Amino acid sequence: MASKIKKIAVLTSGGDSPGMNAAIRSVARTCAYYNIECIGIYRGYQGMIEGDFLPLNARSVKGIINKGGTVLKSARSQEFRTPEGRKKAHENLLKEGIEAFVVIGGDGSFTGALIFNEEFNFPVMGIPGTIDNDIYGTSHTLGYDTALNTVVEVIDKIRDTASSHNRLFFVEVMGRDVGHIALNVGVGAGAEEILIPEEDLGLERLLQSLKRSKLSGKSSSIVVVAEGDKIGKNVFELKEYVEENMTEYEVRVSVLGHMQRGGSPSCFDRVLASRMGVKAVETILEGKSSYMVGLLSDKIEITPLNEAIKGKSKINKELMRVADIMSV
Amino acid sequence: MASKIKKIAVLTSGGDSPGMNAAIRSVARTCAYYNIECIGIYRGYQGMIEGDFLPLNARSVKGIINKGGTVLKSARSQEFRTPEGRKKAHENLLKEGIEAFVVIGGDGSFTGALIFNEEFNFPVMGIPGTIDNDIYGTSHTLGYDTALNTVVEVIDKIRDTASSHNRLFFVEVMGRDVGHIALNVGVGAGAEEILIPEEDLGLERLLQSLKRSKLSGKSSSIVVVAEGDKIGKNVFELKEYVEENMTEYEVRVSVLGHMQRGGSPSCFDRVLASRMGVKAVETILEGKSSYMVGLLSDKIEITPLNEAIKGKSKINKELMRVADIMSV
Amino acid sequence: MASKIKKIAVLTSGGDSPGMNAAIRSVARTCAYYNIECIGIYRGYQGMIEGDFLPLNARSVKGIINKGGTVLKSARSQEFRTPEGRKKAHENLLKEGIEAFVVIGGDGSFTGALIFNEEFNFPVMGIPGTIDNDIYGTSHTLGYDTALNTVVEVIDKIRDTASSHNRLFFVEVMGRDVGHIALNVGVGAGAEEILIPEEDLGLERLLQSLKRSKLSGKSSSIVVVAEGDKIGKNVFELKEYVEENMTEYEVRVSVLGHMQRGGSPSCFDRVLASRMGVKAVETILEGKSSYMVGLLSDKIEITPLNEAIKGKSKINKELMRVADIMSV
Amino acid sequence: MASKIKKIAVLTSGGDSPGMNAAIRSVARTCAYYNIECIGIYRGYQGMIEGDFLPLNARSVKGIINKGGTVLKSARSQEFRTPEGRKKAHENLLKEGIEAFVVIGGDGSFTGALIFNEEFNFPVMGIPGTIDNDIYGTSHTLGYDTALNTVVEVIDKIRDTASSHNRLFFVEVMGRDVGHIALNVGVGAGAEEILIPEEDLGLERLLQSLKRSKLSGKSSSIVVVAEGDKIGKNVFELKEYVEENMTEYEVRVSVLGHMQRGGSPSCFDRVLASRMGVKAVETILEGKSSYMVGLLSDKIEITPLNEAIKGKSKINKELMRVADIMSV
Repeated sequence: MASKIKKIAVLTSGGDSPGMNAAIRSVARTCAYYNIECIGIYRGYQGMIEGDFLPLNARSVKGIINKGGTVLKSARSQEFRTPEGRKKAHENLLKEGIEAFVVIGGDGSFTGALIFNEEFNFPVMGIPGTIDNDIYGTSHTLGYDTALNTVVEVIDKIRDTASSHNRLFFVEVMGRDVGHIALNVGVGAGAEEILIPEEDLGLERLLQSLKRSKLSGKSSSIVVVAEGDKIGKNVFELKEYVEENMTEYEVRVSVLGHMQRGGSPSCFDRVLASRMGVKAVETILEGKSSYMVGLLSDKIEITPLNEAIKGKSKINKELMRVADIMSV
Repeated sequence: MASKIKKIAVLTSGGDSPGMNAAIRSVARTCAYYNIECIGIYRGYQGMIEGDFLPLNARSVKGIINKGGTVLKSARSQEFRTPEGRKKAHENLLKEGIEAFVVIGGDGSFTGALIFNEEFNFPVMGIPGTIDNDIYGTSHTLGYDTALNTVVEVIDKIRDTASSHNRLFFVEVMGRDVGHIALNVGVGAGAEEILIPEEDLGLERLLQSLKRSKLSGKSSSIVVVAEGDKIGKNVFELKEYVEENMTEYEVRVSVLGHMQRGGSPSCFDRVLASRMGVKAVETILEGKSSYMVGLLSDKIEITPLNEAIKGKSKINKELMRVADIMSV
Repeated sequence: MASKIKKIAVLTSGGDSPGMNAAIRSVARTCAYYNIECIGIYRGYQGMIEGDFLPLNARSVKGIINKGGTVLKSARSQEFRTPEGRKKAHENLLKEGIEAFVVIGGDGSFTGALIFNEEFNFPVMGIPGTIDNDIYGTSHTLGYDTALNTVVEVIDKIRDTASSHNRLFFVEVMGRDVGHIALNVGVGAGAEEILIPEEDLGLERLLQSLKRSKLSGKSSSIVVVAEGDKIGKNVFELKEYVEENMTEYEVRVSVLGHMQRGGSPSCFDRVLASRMGVKAVETILEGKSSYMVGLLSDKIEITPLNEAIKGKSKINKELMRVADIMSV
Repeated sequence: MASKIKKIAVLTSGGDSPGMNAAIRSVARTCAYYNIECIGIYRGYQGMIEGDFLPLNARSVKGIINKGGTVLKSARSQEFRTPEGRKKAHENLLKEGIEAFVVIGGDGSFTGALIFNEEFNFPVMGIPGTIDNDIYGTSHTLGYDTALNTVVEVIDKIRDTASSHNRLFFVEVMGRDVGHIALNVGVGAGAEEILIPEEDLGLERLLQSLKRSKLSGKSSSIVVVAEGDKIGKNVFELKEYVEENMTEYEVRVSVLGHMQRGGSPSCFDRVLASRMGVKAVETILEGKSSYMVGLLSDKIEITPLNEAIKGKSKINKELMRVADIMSV
């Protein structure tokens, strides 16, 4: 591939997700493959401002493909939201001879990259890394598949104790704006009900459904609740509400929290990260900028960052119907 | 859905794979949802011949979505290959009032279903269940995603000991005719080389590549080998060959074998199984027969069984290129 | 073994724990081995009162050794606390021809068994099943080892995200009265501080320790907190306190909750359950009653139930010292 | 602790095992706690001969407690078996100012340490690290508990497919001279038969037992075989023998191999490693030499290395009896 670019940087930004390390490795190895230098930037945009750089060759990324988190660390940077901060960052990149960067992160990180590109005409590429799968332009974000497995395994364990005691559990999973995790783990873990931000089931209907479940012979029930569910009650309030209106169950609550972000990435996420890293570097080498790489219909494609940011990730209506049928 | 069909059977046939139970559950629950009776047939076509049936209601499939293997058991049936065997099977179905069946299995099982349909004009549907992902008409067979995770986790463990001792490991994974598992776990586990049935790398090139690896500073190496790799040597022969021609490494071999078929299904496989079961039943209720349900571009679609049987599942060339770049 | 006893019952009572199924299986198989009938009692003492019995032969317990929870279900029974309730239970046992029972549970369940034995001179045996390891007369309760692994794996995942963001996490684990889980997972997961009911570290010392950690170059920290820690603040209050007094860290909280009770038992717990079940049945057959089987210095021993109930499980002081040294 | 020793080295030697990194960390942190320098020696005794040293402070061992393998690498050294090799090693230690070393490994590594101590009057300490649990003076070697869990999880997966097809599996596990792994995983995974080096079951008895199993209604069977089993046939020969003499089962074979050595250590092994590291360093600081630290009756104790080497690790006869009863 003929390109004048000789040095590319990579950083992780925003919340971490499993597969970020595999993507860093892929960017570094693809650079090595094309005889380009690769620089790792620590702590996201803040490290760019502080010049916290480390050269990455093919060997320096060994042994990280299966590690959760990000070896480059991540951070949120207030300073990068200011023109002064970005100016400093740009100067550091120039000083180091960096000619383009790949940012692994979510919407916020992409917005930063886009502004940076507009201000300095600096080539940028995005890799969608977040467990929430809330980014337009890719069917799967990095870390999402791993998080689904993590959550389903935890709910399997909760099911063990729930069914030993005929209990009802409300399990809160991540998803402030989108219900992808809740819907998929709800189906995968055999939840009786799934509460997501995209749909207002209504408290009364929830109650009716749980009563019907009980009558149909179910001895225990799991209700999966996305953080941002539309009913507008958190899991503790839901517990109280159900206990007041239904005496058939002992109710318990579990908030899964940050463990959902960690863990060794699934094979899917490792492969996806490897593919995305190659595409990100090769797209830069083709002279393009301001795209996000993504998986669309099983193929690695690119979407302009400004479309990725504006677009909305949509819930799978067919799967919502499957969920309904499964909880018959 | 208006349909005259009132009783549907479900069976698992051929090699088992994770997610089969989730698919059985989905078929049973979808039947319950549509107020149709569901009958489980034990031990595949052999159980059909022997009339080994069990009614399945929504509750009788509880607690199986996360279990490996198949609660209906599987078997290979010589008798079903004979017209007499199939006649007996047909009589049993009629006697029980079964009007259609869903078979979860691979190519061979689908061929059986197709012949059965042709002989008796009996409605049949297929759900692709096999870890090999070697079926045309679906991007993912049931159990494939789980197997990838199982294998990658095992290779991670082998890597621990390989890198503690500067060793070279040949790891044999399933895949007699197709290299999907080998290619994906090879990329996912960071293998240095991947030998698959679709490509003849050549012994000499393998050796050169391993020598280059060593020179580039790699202290240990994993080579993933599909059962049916084109080089035509099994892992034990490969070990011998490399040891004779290269003294830089201690060589070890690991044949993963049947463990690859087992284990609790991944979230992906549970969701896929749930979706496929719904689609299989609904397609029957629409009055259709002789289709396989599959995942194509993230959507559940149907493909005529005869196309599914004749078609070929293709290896992802882009991923082969990614594998090359990653082992730089 | 010569004994006049011909029928033994087994039940699980109180909170469930991994390994209970393995213990049920062991009791049933040991009975089969000695040609004694075995009866499973559902839902603990409540099922005894309601006559909810099921015969268990060697085959009916197959496939459960690796399952979490309890196939016999568990429950807390208010009625069994009354003389009338126990009378009904006793009548049911007599009617069924049951001559002794083995109860798998904790202190409360043992107290019930002891009272029952005293009232009716009915032979009883206890197997300690609880994840808390809070029972005198055994170095390990059933489920404890599994829970340690479950928790350590979750904290490993939290560590991934903690160290990607330089965060401080308070992780609450089970242990209302004893700190066994907290102390062991604290050491096992490399926690910087461990707060347990047996020791009042003091808020000021906690703060000093966290500041020292930060100064020594630690970029992230995990503090493991037992539910019943002596500081008397829950994890949310701890978060607030530290945030007010220390700005070096972003603080996060994770309450692990009921997932700690579930999951497939570890090899240790499966073996322990098998050994305990054999010993429980054989002790009954020797004509003894009112003992608990336990592991003491790697040997299966028996302790009178009244001692087990009165005794106190002690925290390992040596391990507290190891924890201190490890967080240097 | 008053001691004149100011610099201690640590190395891993022989086959690696999970928990070795946790032990390295513990030695390094205990040194830091006592204000002593700690030096890591790479690649075991070979690295000692080549002077492949690295200073380890409290921070340089962070993030390794949960990693399989050994960050210090391991190797077998022919040169260390010669007086010249050991002389070079001794000179390197003196040059570096190292005054004692802790070796983590098995019998062979301890023999080396003992000879070294006798030749140079150099203080040495041993930590038993091997998955085989074949060392006298400790109830558990480092890595043994993890290996049991690894193997049991794999056999659970094999069981999934075995019971789906009514198959008989011979599963070979590690244990050339001792059957600890085979016996424990056999009981833990519910194997029908267990073949170990300590006992000659006899081919005829094996056959009878398998036939009895089949008659008693078992549809599938797992036979766990230690590498060094007394019957003197490997698993492939066993398969042939059984297939010739018994047509009731399809027989399959699985050799687990090196994966048994890898993986993230269990909580037990991490805690054990932490305790052993502390004890090893403190014993050196007390002015002692040539001991192995071990776990005896749940306490950390020391045993003279020459006793540890000569002694024999014994199989648990009670557990053999439990295994018999469980396979009723």
